[in-house]
Amino acid sequence: MSKEPLRLALAGLGTVGTGVAQLLQQHSARLTQTCGRSLRVTAAASRTFRDNSLALLPEAAQVANAADLPQRPDVDVVLEAIGGADGVALELAQNTLRAGKTLITANKALLAKHGNALAQLAEQHGGRIAFEAAVAGGVPIIKMLRESAVGDNITRLVCILNGTCNYILSEMEETGRSFDDVLAEAQAKGYAEADPTLDIDGHDAAHKIALAAAVAFRVQVPQNVVTEGIRHITNTDTQALNALGYRIRLLGVAQVHADGSVSCYVRPHAVPINSATGRTIGPFNVITYDCEAAGTLAVRGRGAGRAPTATAMVADLVDVALGGDRPVFGVPFAHLRAAPQRDCATTSSAFYICLPVYDKVGVLATIAQAMAQHNVSVRSLVQHSQAADAPVNVILLTHPTTEQAVDAVLQDLAPLCVGATQRLRLL
Amino acid sequence: MSKEPLRLALAGLGTVGTGVAQLLQQHSARLTQTCGRSLRVTAAASRTFRDNSLALLPEAAQVANAADLPQRPDVDVVLEAIGGADGVALELAQNTLRAGKTLITANKALLAKHGNALAQLAEQHGGRIAFEAAVAGGVPIIKMLRESAVGDNITRLVCILNGTCNYILSEMEETGRSFDDVLAEAQAKGYAEADPTLDIDGHDAAHKIALAAAVAFRVQVPQNVVTEGIRHITNTDTQALNALGYRIRLLGVAQVHADGSVSCYVRPHAVPINSATGRTIGPFNVITYDCEAAGTLAVRGRGAGRAPTATAMVADLVDVALGGDRPVFGVPFAHLRAAPQRDCATTSSAFYICLPVYDKVGVLATIAQAMAQHNVSVRSLVQHSQAADAPVNVILLTHPTTEQAVDAVLQDLAPLCVGATQRLRLL
Repeated sequence: MSKEPLRLALAGLGTVGTGVAQLLQQHSARLTQTCGRSLRVTAAASRTFRDNSLALLPEAAQVANAADLPQRPDVDVVLEAIGGADGVALELAQNTLRAGKTLITANKALLAKHGNALAQLAEQHGGRIAFEAAVAGGVPIIKMLRESAVGDNITRLVCILNGTCNYILSEMEETGRSFDDVLAEAQAKGYAEADPTLDIDGHDAAHKIALAAAVAFRVQVPQNVVTEGIRHITNTDTQALNALGYRIRLLGVAQVHADGSVSCYVRPHAVPINSATGRTIGPFNVITYDCEAAGTLAVRGRGAGRAPTATAMVADLVDVALGGDRPVFGVPFAHLRAAPQRDCATTSSAFYICLPVYDKVGVLATIAQAMAQHNVSVRSLVQHSQAADAPVNVILLTHPTTEQAVDAVLQDLAPLCVGATQRLRLL
Repeated sequence: MSKEPLRLALAGLGTVGTGVAQLLQQHSARLTQTCGRSLRVTAAASRTFRDNSLALLPEAAQVANAADLPQRPDVDVVLEAIGGADGVALELAQNTLRAGKTLITANKALLAKHGNALAQLAEQHGGRIAFEAAVAGGVPIIKMLRESAVGDNITRLVCILNGTCNYILSEMEETGRSFDDVLAEAQAKGYAEADPTLDIDGHDAAHKIALAAAVAFRVQVPQNVVTEGIRHITNTDTQALNALGYRIRLLGVAQVHADGSVSCYVRPHAVPINSATGRTIGPFNVITYDCEAAGTLAVRGRGAGRAPTATAMVADLVDVALGGDRPVFGVPFAHLRAAPQRDCATTSSAFYICLPVYDKVGVLATIAQAMAQHNVSVRSLVQHSQAADAPVNVILLTHPTTEQAVDAVLQDLAPLCVGATQRLRLL
């Protein structure tokens, strides 16, 4: 035990911050053995200091403004568990890196927006950023992509990255209840936030897939990830797809194309029930990635929650304590490709389409004509009419085409439809 | 690029060694960027030097005896891809570590047998051992267990670790062919070794589960792992289990019990078809592990083969190049528990039992009596008789009991049986 203790500042004593303090206390002896030095929380910042948090941090100075933590001479590493893409979190990150210190963060919004600038700032000042906790919580996907695949080329990521959405979609399918119903219950139970926008509109998944893509493909963090959430998913879709061997999952997908461009998007997908993503039921994350040499890997676990997220921050902390600094996104920023982003509307996919129409003579002919006109080829068509001249859902699966083409078809057919149409990519 | 090149010796230019040389050449520029130094193979040892291997290693001195590599002043790291628990591989490992150098190895047999001694040797001389490639090939399970779960307690590992066995069992189930038949075909196709003993008798899986258990539980590498292979699996078992919602998988299982003892064994299991292990079909590995804080994680990928195994060695190499030395099994050897090993015959499990008997009056009563006598409780019993006084298989699933109790039942019933009995643990 020759080395000095590593001195930590904990910014934010909410769920995750308290979880980190708990793990550091519980595993103190072993962490010291592993690191060859002790890990000591010397300062903490929080809006309110609760007794149960303070009991875990007997040596920590209480600091009002988190952004002041990095300037303290008794702080080597800042663990950020505040959240938010800007504001205090950003100021804290910048101050930490400008001081040449290490930032360990669970903040996906911050890094998705400012990761490129912060990585450069870290390199300029000899600081470091670790962010395992920001993507998939207790699933160590950043380490797997950045470190284990370092001698390989990753070509595609297909991920369930938002446990709240996966829970809601699973419940809708199992119980036949509506999206609004299941969301309300999830909020009441504390599974979903009071303001669920970040989750259910796909922004949280978008932050995570952008960060995963940067590490996997060694590209600058993609900006403006095209995102579609799950508010518009209905039980009509769920049931129609179940009958065809599919279920609905919100996926983050990122892919390197032959021309070097990268597509990165979040979309609800129809996925085969019998696939790694399709079999993931409830509040879990799963990441599947295709490697040139190692083949396809899939990993599943808990993507959120106090303890899983805290274990990821502690794992980062031990890496930092041991040294062996790595560039933030795997290679130095100058070597990250500024890959052109390819609009996912132009990438190839098969589609599920639901058209609510009146069951009248000529309707199918009109649909078929619109599809043909936009070069969209039909793989299967299902229509179960109740009565002539009544509303019916025409369900189509297409052969591979583009979102662009499908949206053009839907636009042409809008006058024919008696309710909202639906289109979902097929995995 | 301030740092000196890292100078590598490649011991063994077979499938894996050549794979490593290929990846180092293919990704040379990126690896240099990531490591901040170049990786240069300065020496190679092989029984025969083929032109295609030499073309990949333009700067390497050709050395006849691998054990001489560590003494060379132009070698910092030895990559061992020779194999074998003793002999040259052991001598090479010892020489490398005594010289205070780093050993990167894919050799599970070596580490399962000598890992405890080699870890101590490494610590004494300031050397290092990295062995991601030794367990599950392209699946980075050692890194996940050792690094990502460093702030957590892992309580159980359930793993498919031998792709050859998983391929054979999958083929038997799909085609209804016998074990011998499928093995012969696998050998002809190069999926199984000419001498398949290490694989099909479970020794390869035993080496791997022992190493994974050491890292997961921070214990000394368990010795004498109790092993049962798949030679005795028949299609009677496969079909009977399929009808009950199970299939057969060869599993390595390791568990920490409440008293701190560790059980570690390899056994063919009946696993639910709808489980992470049950859904793994073909030559794949899957590792499921239960964590106190992070919950259950599961990871699947290719556990063997040139490219997947080579990527694991390259990942280890980059870790070494970057520094940040970790103790071989996660904590220093002195802190690895010498946990008492618990005989798996005494651990709790439900069982599948197949009894080939004559369908005669009183047979079921005798079976039921033997079960009751050894306190084994029946969960289900299936018997489909062809005719009275003809042979029939009585298929039983038990409630949780022990292997000891089941074996006692089978011994009592041996006089009744007209062929080999079978018992398999249920997952």
